[in-house]
Amino acid sequence: MSPAGRRPGKTDTRSAVLDAARECFADNGYDGTTIRAIARKAGVDPALVHHFFGAKAELFVAAVDFPFSPRAMLATLLEANAADAGELILRQFLALWDDPTTRRRLLAVVRSAVRYEAAAVILRTFLDRELIGTFVRALDAPDADVRATLVGSQLIGLAMARYIVKLPPLATASTEQLVAAYAPTLQRYLTGDVGIV
Amino acid sequence: MSPAGRRPGKTDTRSAVLDAARECFADNGYDGTTIRAIARKAGVDPALVHHFFGAKAELFVAAVDFPFSPRAMLATLLEANAADAGELILRQFLALWDDPTTRRRLLAVVRSAVRYEAAAVILRTFLDRELIGTFVRALDAPDADVRATLVGSQLIGLAMARYIVKLPPLATASTEQLVAAYAPTLQRYLTGDVGIV
Repeated sequence: MSPAGRRPGKTDTRSAVLDAARECFADNGYDGTTIRAIARKAGVDPALVHHFFGAKAELFVAAVDFPFSPRAMLATLLEANAADAGELILRQFLALWDDPTTRRRLLAVVRSAVRYEAAAVILRTFLDRELIGTFVRALDAPDADVRATLVGSQLIGLAMARYIVKLPPLATASTEQLVAAYAPTLQRYLTGDVGIV
Repeated sequence: MSPAGRRPGKTDTRSAVLDAARECFADNGYDGTTIRAIARKAGVDPALVHHFFGAKAELFVAAVDFPFSPRAMLATLLEANAADAGELILRQFLALWDDPTTRRRLLAVVRSAVRYEAAAVILRTFLDRELIGTFVRALDAPDADVRATLVGSQLIGLAMARYIVKLPPLATASTEQLVAAYAPTLQRYLTGDVGIV
Protein backbone atom coordinates (compact mmCIF):
# COMPACT_ATOMS: atom_id res chain seq x y z
CA MET A 1 0.00 0.00 0.00
CA SER A 2 1.36 3.44 -0.92
CA PRO A 3 1.88 6.05 1.86
CA ALA A 4 -1.13 8.03 0.68
CA GLY A 5 -3.27 4.91 1.09
CA ARG A 6 -4.36 4.85 -2.60
CA ARG A 7 -3.87 1.88 -4.83
CA PRO A 8 -1.43 2.79 -7.65
CA GLY A 9 -3.84 1.31 -10.22
CA LYS A 10 -6.40 4.01 -9.53
CA THR A 11 -3.93 6.82 -10.28
CA ASP A 12 -2.82 5.06 -13.46
CA THR A 13 -6.40 4.70 -14.66
CA ARG A 14 -7.16 8.36 -13.90
CA SER A 15 -4.19 9.59 -15.88
CA ALA A 16 -4.93 7.17 -18.74
CA VAL A 17 -8.46 8.60 -18.91
CA LEU A 18 -7.15 12.20 -18.81
CA ASP A 19 -4.62 11.46 -21.57
CA ALA A 20 -7.36 9.87 -23.68
CA ALA A 21 -9.66 12.83 -23.01
CA ARG A 22 -7.01 15.37 -24.11
CA GLU A 23 -6.44 13.43 -27.33
CA CYS A 24 -10.16 13.09 -28.08
CA PHE A 25 -10.95 16.78 -27.39
CA ALA A 26 -7.97 17.87 -29.51
CA ASP A 27 -8.88 15.54 -32.40
CA ASN A 28 -12.68 15.85 -32.39
CA GLY A 29 -13.50 19.04 -30.51
CA TYR A 30 -15.81 19.38 -27.54
CA ASP A 31 -19.05 18.44 -29.26
CA GLY A 32 -17.48 15.55 -31.19
CA THR A 33 -16.15 13.84 -28.07
CA THR A 34 -18.15 11.38 -25.97
CA ILE A 35 -17.41 9.76 -22.62
CA ARG A 36 -17.80 6.42 -24.42
CA ALA A 37 -15.07 7.30 -26.98
CA ILE A 38 -12.71 8.46 -24.23
CA ALA A 39 -13.32 5.26 -22.25
CA ARG A 40 -12.66 3.15 -25.36
CA LYS A 41 -9.37 4.95 -26.06
CA ALA A 42 -8.31 4.58 -22.40
CA GLY A 43 -9.33 0.89 -22.37
CA VAL A 44 -11.72 1.26 -19.45
CA ASP A 45 -15.46 1.00 -18.85
CA PRO A 46 -17.49 4.22 -19.47
CA ALA A 47 -19.05 3.77 -16.02
CA LEU A 48 -15.61 4.09 -14.48
CA VAL A 49 -15.03 7.40 -16.34
CA HIS A 50 -18.36 8.67 -15.01
CA HIS A 51 -17.41 7.48 -11.55
CA PHE A 52 -14.09 9.34 -11.57
CA PHE A 53 -15.07 12.54 -13.37
CA GLY A 54 -18.85 12.89 -13.60
CA ALA A 55 -20.20 14.50 -16.78
CA LYS A 56 -18.28 15.45 -19.93
CA ALA A 57 -17.94 19.08 -18.80
CA GLU A 58 -16.22 18.07 -15.57
CA LEU A 59 -13.89 15.72 -17.47
CA PHE A 60 -13.01 18.58 -19.86
CA VAL A 61 -12.25 20.86 -16.88
CA ALA A 62 -9.92 18.17 -15.49
CA ALA A 63 -8.33 17.38 -18.87
CA VAL A 64 -7.40 20.97 -19.76
CA ASP A 65 -6.50 21.66 -16.12
CA PHE A 66 -9.12 24.43 -16.15
CA PRO A 67 -8.83 25.83 -12.64
CA PHE A 68 -12.46 26.32 -11.80
CA SER A 69 -15.67 24.43 -12.14
CA PRO A 70 -18.75 25.87 -13.86
CA ARG A 71 -20.82 24.10 -11.19
CA ALA A 72 -19.03 26.01 -8.43
CA MET A 73 -19.75 29.28 -10.27
CA LEU A 74 -23.39 28.28 -10.60
CA ALA A 75 -23.52 27.68 -6.84
CA THR A 76 -22.16 31.21 -6.26
CA LEU A 77 -24.72 32.75 -8.56
CA LEU A 78 -27.62 30.83 -7.07
CA GLU A 79 -26.56 31.67 -3.51
CA ALA A 80 -26.01 35.33 -4.31
CA ASN A 81 -28.58 38.00 -3.92
CA ALA A 82 -29.16 39.07 -7.54
CA ALA A 83 -28.00 42.59 -6.61
CA ASP A 84 -24.62 41.28 -5.41
CA ALA A 85 -23.92 38.74 -8.15
CA GLY A 86 -21.56 41.01 -10.15
CA GLU A 87 -19.37 41.71 -7.14
CA LEU A 88 -19.31 38.05 -6.05
CA ILE A 89 -18.32 36.80 -9.51
CA LEU A 90 -15.59 39.45 -9.68
CA ARG A 91 -14.17 38.54 -6.26
CA GLN A 92 -14.16 34.84 -7.16
CA PHE A 93 -12.45 35.59 -10.49
CA LEU A 94 -9.78 37.81 -8.87
CA ALA A 95 -9.10 35.17 -6.20
CA LEU A 96 -8.42 32.61 -8.95
CA TRP A 97 -6.01 34.94 -10.78
CA ASP A 98 -4.30 36.26 -7.64
CA ASP A 99 -3.40 32.72 -6.55
CA PRO A 100 -0.09 31.87 -8.32
CA THR A 101 -1.06 28.22 -8.91
CA THR A 102 -4.45 28.81 -10.51
CA ARG A 103 -3.05 31.85 -12.34
CA ARG A 104 -0.47 29.63 -14.04
CA ARG A 105 -3.19 27.24 -15.19
CA LEU A 106 -5.47 30.06 -16.40
CA LEU A 107 -2.56 31.60 -18.32
CA ALA A 108 -1.99 28.27 -20.06
CA VAL A 109 -5.66 28.13 -21.13
CA VAL A 110 -5.61 31.73 -22.44
CA ARG A 111 -2.27 31.21 -24.22
CA SER A 112 -3.41 28.08 -26.04
CA ALA A 113 -6.72 29.71 -27.06
CA VAL A 114 -4.86 32.71 -28.51
CA ARG A 115 -2.20 30.58 -30.24
CA TYR A 116 -4.17 27.73 -31.71
CA GLU A 117 -7.41 28.14 -33.61
CA ALA A 118 -8.35 24.55 -32.63
CA ALA A 119 -7.90 25.31 -28.92
CA ALA A 120 -10.01 28.46 -29.31
CA VAL A 121 -12.77 26.42 -30.94
CA ILE A 122 -12.79 23.82 -28.17
CA LEU A 123 -12.71 26.51 -25.46
CA ARG A 124 -15.51 28.42 -27.19
CA THR A 125 -17.72 25.35 -27.42
CA PHE A 126 -17.04 24.45 -23.81
CA LEU A 127 -17.75 28.00 -22.60
CA ASP A 128 -20.84 28.16 -24.76
CA ARG A 129 -22.30 24.78 -23.84
CA GLU A 130 -21.30 24.62 -20.21
CA LEU A 131 -20.32 27.92 -18.64
CA ILE A 132 -22.76 30.16 -20.50
CA GLY A 133 -25.40 27.43 -20.31
CA THR A 134 -24.87 27.42 -16.57
CA PHE A 135 -25.30 31.18 -16.37
CA VAL A 136 -28.39 31.01 -18.55
CA ARG A 137 -30.06 28.49 -16.27
CA ALA A 138 -29.07 30.50 -13.18
CA LEU A 139 -30.26 33.85 -14.57
CA ASP A 140 -33.42 32.42 -16.12
CA ALA A 141 -33.80 35.41 -18.51
CA PRO A 142 -34.33 35.35 -22.31
CA ASP A 143 -31.11 37.33 -22.97
CA ALA A 144 -29.02 35.45 -20.42
CA ASP A 145 -26.56 34.19 -23.06
CA VAL A 146 -25.75 37.74 -24.15
CA ARG A 147 -25.41 38.86 -20.52
CA ALA A 148 -23.07 35.97 -19.77
CA THR A 149 -20.76 36.87 -22.67
CA LEU A 150 -20.76 40.57 -21.70
CA VAL A 151 -19.61 39.54 -18.21
CA GLY A 152 -17.03 37.22 -19.71
CA SER A 153 -15.69 39.90 -22.04
CA GLN A 154 -15.00 42.29 -19.15
CA LEU A 155 -13.43 39.57 -16.99
CA ILE A 156 -11.08 38.33 -19.72
CA GLY A 157 -10.11 41.93 -20.55
CA LEU A 158 -9.35 42.62 -16.91
CA ALA A 159 -7.20 39.46 -16.79
CA MET A 160 -5.35 40.49 -19.98
CA ALA A 161 -4.65 44.02 -18.70
CA ARG A 162 -3.80 43.07 -15.09
CA TYR A 163 -2.08 39.69 -15.38
CA ILE A 164 -0.77 39.39 -18.95
CA VAL A 165 0.09 42.87 -20.29
CA LYS A 166 0.34 44.09 -16.64
CA LEU A 167 -0.65 47.70 -17.26
CA PRO A 168 0.65 49.62 -14.24
CA PRO A 169 -2.44 51.04 -12.52
CA LEU A 170 -4.44 47.81 -12.94
CA ALA A 171 -1.55 45.46 -12.18
CA THR A 172 -1.07 47.02 -8.75
CA ALA A 173 -4.67 47.98 -7.86
CA SER A 174 -6.16 46.37 -4.76
CA THR A 175 -9.14 44.01 -4.87
CA GLU A 176 -11.33 46.72 -3.31
CA GLN A 177 -10.30 49.25 -5.97
CA LEU A 178 -11.10 46.74 -8.69
CA VAL A 179 -14.46 45.96 -7.10
CA ALA A 180 -15.31 49.68 -7.03
CA ALA A 181 -14.46 50.05 -10.72
CA TYR A 182 -15.73 46.76 -12.19
CA ALA A 183 -18.57 45.44 -9.99
CA PRO A 184 -21.07 48.05 -11.31
CA THR A 185 -20.16 47.07 -14.89
CA LEU A 186 -20.71 43.37 -14.21
CA GLN A 187 -23.92 44.07 -12.29
CA ARG A 188 -25.32 46.07 -15.21
CA TYR A 189 -24.37 43.30 -17.64
CA LEU A 190 -26.15 40.74 -15.41
CA THR A 191 -29.33 42.56 -14.48
CA GLY A 192 -29.35 46.08 -16.03
CA ASP A 193 -30.44 47.52 -19.35
CA VAL A 194 -27.93 46.32 -21.96
CA GLY A 195 -29.99 47.08 -25.04
CA ILE A 196 -29.50 43.70 -26.77
CA VAL A 197 -32.17 41.02 -26.76
CA MET B 1 12.00 56.04 -62.44
CA SER B 2 9.61 53.42 -61.08
CA PRO B 3 5.96 53.44 -62.18
CA ALA B 4 4.83 54.75 -58.78
CA GLY B 5 7.21 57.68 -59.19
CA ARG B 6 9.21 56.88 -56.03
CA ARG B 7 12.95 56.42 -56.04
CA PRO B 8 13.79 52.80 -55.10
CA GLY B 9 16.39 54.04 -52.62
CA LYS B 10 13.71 55.59 -50.44
CA THR B 11 11.83 52.29 -50.05
CA ASP B 12 15.07 50.49 -49.24
CA THR B 13 15.96 53.04 -46.59
CA ARG B 14 12.48 52.85 -45.04
CA SER B 15 12.62 49.09 -44.73
CA ALA B 16 16.19 49.19 -43.41
CA VAL B 17 15.03 51.60 -40.69
CA LEU B 18 12.01 49.41 -39.86
CA ASP B 19 14.21 46.30 -39.65
CA ALA B 20 16.66 48.13 -37.39
CA ALA B 21 13.78 49.41 -35.24
CA ARG B 22 12.32 45.89 -34.79
CA GLU B 23 15.73 44.58 -33.70
CA CYS B 24 16.35 47.45 -31.29
CA PHE B 25 12.88 47.26 -29.68
CA ALA B 26 13.20 43.46 -29.33
CA ASP B 27 16.71 43.67 -27.85
CA ASN B 28 16.40 46.72 -25.63
CA GLY B 29 12.68 47.28 -25.03
CA TYR B 30 10.73 50.43 -25.70
CA ASP B 31 12.41 52.64 -23.12
CA GLY B 32 15.91 51.38 -23.96
CA THR B 33 15.61 52.23 -27.66
CA THR B 34 16.45 55.62 -29.15
CA ILE B 35 15.97 57.03 -32.65
CA ARG B 36 19.74 57.62 -32.67
CA ALA B 37 20.47 53.90 -31.98
CA ILE B 38 18.03 52.80 -34.69
CA ALA B 39 19.60 55.22 -37.18
CA ARG B 40 23.08 53.94 -36.33
CA LYS B 41 22.02 50.32 -36.85
CA ALA B 42 20.33 51.19 -40.16
CA GLY B 43 23.36 53.23 -41.27
CA VAL B 44 21.40 56.44 -41.85
CA ASP B 45 21.20 59.88 -40.33
CA PRO B 46 18.83 60.28 -37.33
CA ALA B 47 17.28 63.28 -39.07
CA LEU B 48 16.21 60.99 -41.92
CA VAL B 49 14.51 58.62 -39.44
CA HIS B 50 12.65 61.60 -37.95
CA HIS B 51 11.75 62.75 -41.45
CA PHE B 52 10.28 59.35 -42.41
CA PHE B 53 8.57 58.36 -39.16
CA GLY B 54 8.35 61.29 -36.74
CA ALA B 55 8.73 60.47 -33.04
CA LYS B 56 9.73 57.15 -31.47
CA ALA B 57 6.08 56.22 -30.79
CA GLU B 58 5.18 56.56 -34.45
CA LEU B 59 8.22 54.52 -35.48
CA PHE B 60 7.19 51.79 -33.00
CA VAL B 61 3.66 51.77 -34.46
CA ALA B 62 5.16 51.30 -37.93
CA ALA B 63 7.74 48.70 -36.80
CA VAL B 64 5.27 46.38 -35.06
CA ASP B 65 2.69 47.02 -37.78
CA PHE B 66 0.36 48.33 -35.07
CA PRO B 67 -2.74 49.24 -37.05
CA PHE B 68 -3.66 52.50 -35.43
CA SER B 69 -1.93 55.62 -34.27
CA PRO B 70 -2.23 56.97 -30.74
CA ARG B 71 -2.25 60.44 -32.28
CA ALA B 72 -5.33 59.60 -34.35
CA MET B 73 -7.07 58.36 -31.19
CA LEU B 74 -6.09 61.56 -29.41
CA ALA B 75 -7.64 63.55 -32.25
CA THR B 76 -10.89 61.58 -31.81
CA LEU B 77 -10.96 62.23 -28.10
CA LEU B 78 -10.21 65.91 -28.45
CA GLU B 79 -12.85 66.36 -31.14
CA ALA B 80 -15.45 64.42 -29.22
CA ASN B 81 -17.95 65.92 -26.91
CA ALA B 82 -16.87 64.42 -23.54
CA ALA B 83 -20.31 62.77 -23.26
CA ASP B 84 -19.83 60.89 -26.55
CA ALA B 85 -16.20 59.85 -26.15
CA GLY B 86 -16.99 56.29 -25.01
CA GLU B 87 -19.18 55.60 -28.02
CA LEU B 88 -16.69 57.15 -30.47
CA ILE B 89 -13.76 55.15 -29.13
CA LEU B 90 -15.84 51.97 -29.32
CA ARG B 91 -16.93 52.63 -32.92
CA GLN B 92 -13.33 53.34 -33.95
CA PHE B 93 -12.13 50.18 -32.21
CA LEU B 94 -14.83 47.99 -33.82
CA ALA B 95 -14.07 49.44 -37.26
CA LEU B 96 -10.41 48.42 -36.85
CA TRP B 97 -11.33 44.86 -35.83
CA ASP B 98 -14.12 44.43 -38.38
CA ASP B 99 -11.74 45.27 -41.25
CA PRO B 100 -10.01 41.96 -42.19
CA THR B 101 -6.64 43.65 -42.88
CA THR B 102 -6.31 45.57 -39.64
CA ARG B 103 -7.83 42.64 -37.74
CA ARG B 104 -4.99 40.41 -38.94
CA ARG B 105 -2.41 42.91 -37.71
CA LEU B 106 -4.14 43.40 -34.35
CA LEU B 107 -4.34 39.62 -33.91
CA ALA B 108 -0.58 39.40 -34.49
CA VAL B 109 0.05 42.02 -31.80
CA VAL B 110 -2.26 40.27 -29.28
CA ARG B 111 -0.79 36.84 -30.08
CA SER B 112 2.81 37.94 -29.59
CA ALA B 113 1.97 39.74 -26.32
CA VAL B 114 0.27 36.61 -24.98
CA ARG B 115 3.04 34.27 -26.16
CA TYR B 116 6.20 36.13 -25.33
CA GLU B 117 6.84 37.87 -22.04
CA ALA B 118 9.31 40.20 -23.82
CA ALA B 119 6.64 41.26 -26.34
CA ALA B 120 4.18 41.86 -23.48
CA VAL B 121 6.74 44.08 -21.74
CA ILE B 122 7.40 46.15 -24.86
CA LEU B 123 3.67 46.46 -25.60
CA ARG B 124 2.96 47.43 -21.99
CA THR B 125 5.64 50.14 -21.99
CA PHE B 126 4.43 51.48 -25.30
CA LEU B 127 0.78 51.51 -24.19
CA ASP B 128 1.77 53.07 -20.89
CA ARG B 129 4.08 55.77 -22.25
CA GLU B 130 2.24 56.62 -25.45
CA LEU B 131 -1.36 55.47 -25.58
CA ILE B 132 -2.24 55.98 -21.92
CA GLY B 133 -0.10 59.11 -21.84
CA THR B 134 -2.12 60.36 -24.78
CA PHE B 135 -5.40 59.67 -22.98
CA VAL B 136 -4.09 61.31 -19.84
CA ARG B 137 -3.26 64.51 -21.68
CA ALA B 138 -6.61 64.46 -23.47
CA LEU B 139 -8.68 63.79 -20.34
CA ASP B 140 -6.65 66.15 -18.14
CA ALA B 141 -7.87 64.47 -14.92
CA PRO B 142 -5.75 63.20 -11.99
CA ASP B 143 -6.99 59.61 -12.39
CA ALA B 144 -6.81 59.61 -16.20
CA ASP B 145 -4.25 56.76 -16.26
CA VAL B 146 -6.63 54.49 -14.34
CA ARG B 147 -9.54 55.50 -16.57
CA ALA B 148 -7.52 54.76 -19.69
CA THR B 149 -6.65 51.24 -18.49
CA LEU B 150 -10.28 50.54 -17.52
CA VAL B 151 -11.30 51.46 -21.07
CA GLY B 152 -8.50 49.34 -22.47
CA SER B 153 -9.47 46.33 -20.37
CA GLN B 154 -13.03 46.34 -21.70
CA LEU B 155 -11.92 46.83 -25.30
CA ILE B 156 -9.35 44.01 -25.24
CA GLY B 157 -11.89 41.70 -23.54
CA LEU B 158 -14.46 42.50 -26.22
CA ALA B 159 -11.85 41.74 -28.90
CA MET B 160 -10.93 38.43 -27.23
CA ALA B 161 -14.58 37.34 -26.89
CA ARG B 162 -15.75 38.55 -30.33
CA TYR B 163 -12.74 38.03 -32.61
CA ILE B 164 -10.51 35.40 -30.95
CA VAL B 165 -12.68 33.02 -28.89
CA LYS B 166 -15.70 34.07 -31.04
CA LEU B 167 -18.39 33.50 -28.44
CA PRO B 168 -21.63 33.17 -30.40
CA PRO B 169 -23.80 36.12 -29.28
CA LEU B 170 -20.90 38.59 -29.36
CA ALA B 171 -19.31 37.24 -32.52
CA THR B 172 -22.49 37.90 -34.51
CA ALA B 173 -23.81 41.02 -32.73
CA SER B 174 -24.20 44.18 -34.83
CA THR B 175 -22.21 47.35 -34.19
CA GLU B 176 -25.36 49.04 -32.87
CA GLN B 177 -26.00 46.20 -30.41
CA LEU B 178 -22.42 46.41 -29.19
CA VAL B 179 -22.69 50.18 -28.83
CA ALA B 180 -25.86 49.78 -26.73
CA ALA B 181 -24.12 47.28 -24.44
CA TYR B 182 -20.60 48.71 -24.18
CA ALA B 183 -20.72 52.48 -24.76
CA PRO B 184 -22.22 53.17 -21.29
CA THR B 185 -19.43 51.10 -19.71
CA LEU B 186 -16.71 53.01 -21.56
CA GLN B 187 -18.39 56.34 -20.83
CA ARG B 188 -18.49 55.58 -17.09
CA TYR B 189 -14.83 54.55 -17.17
CA LEU B 190 -13.94 57.83 -18.93
CA THR B 191 -16.02 60.35 -17.02
CA GLY B 192 -18.11 58.59 -14.32
CA ASP B 193 -17.49 57.55 -10.72
CA VAL B 194 -15.06 54.63 -10.81
CA GLY B 195 -14.02 54.73 -7.16
CA ILE B 196 -10.24 54.58 -7.78
CA VAL B 197 -8.01 57.62 -7.49
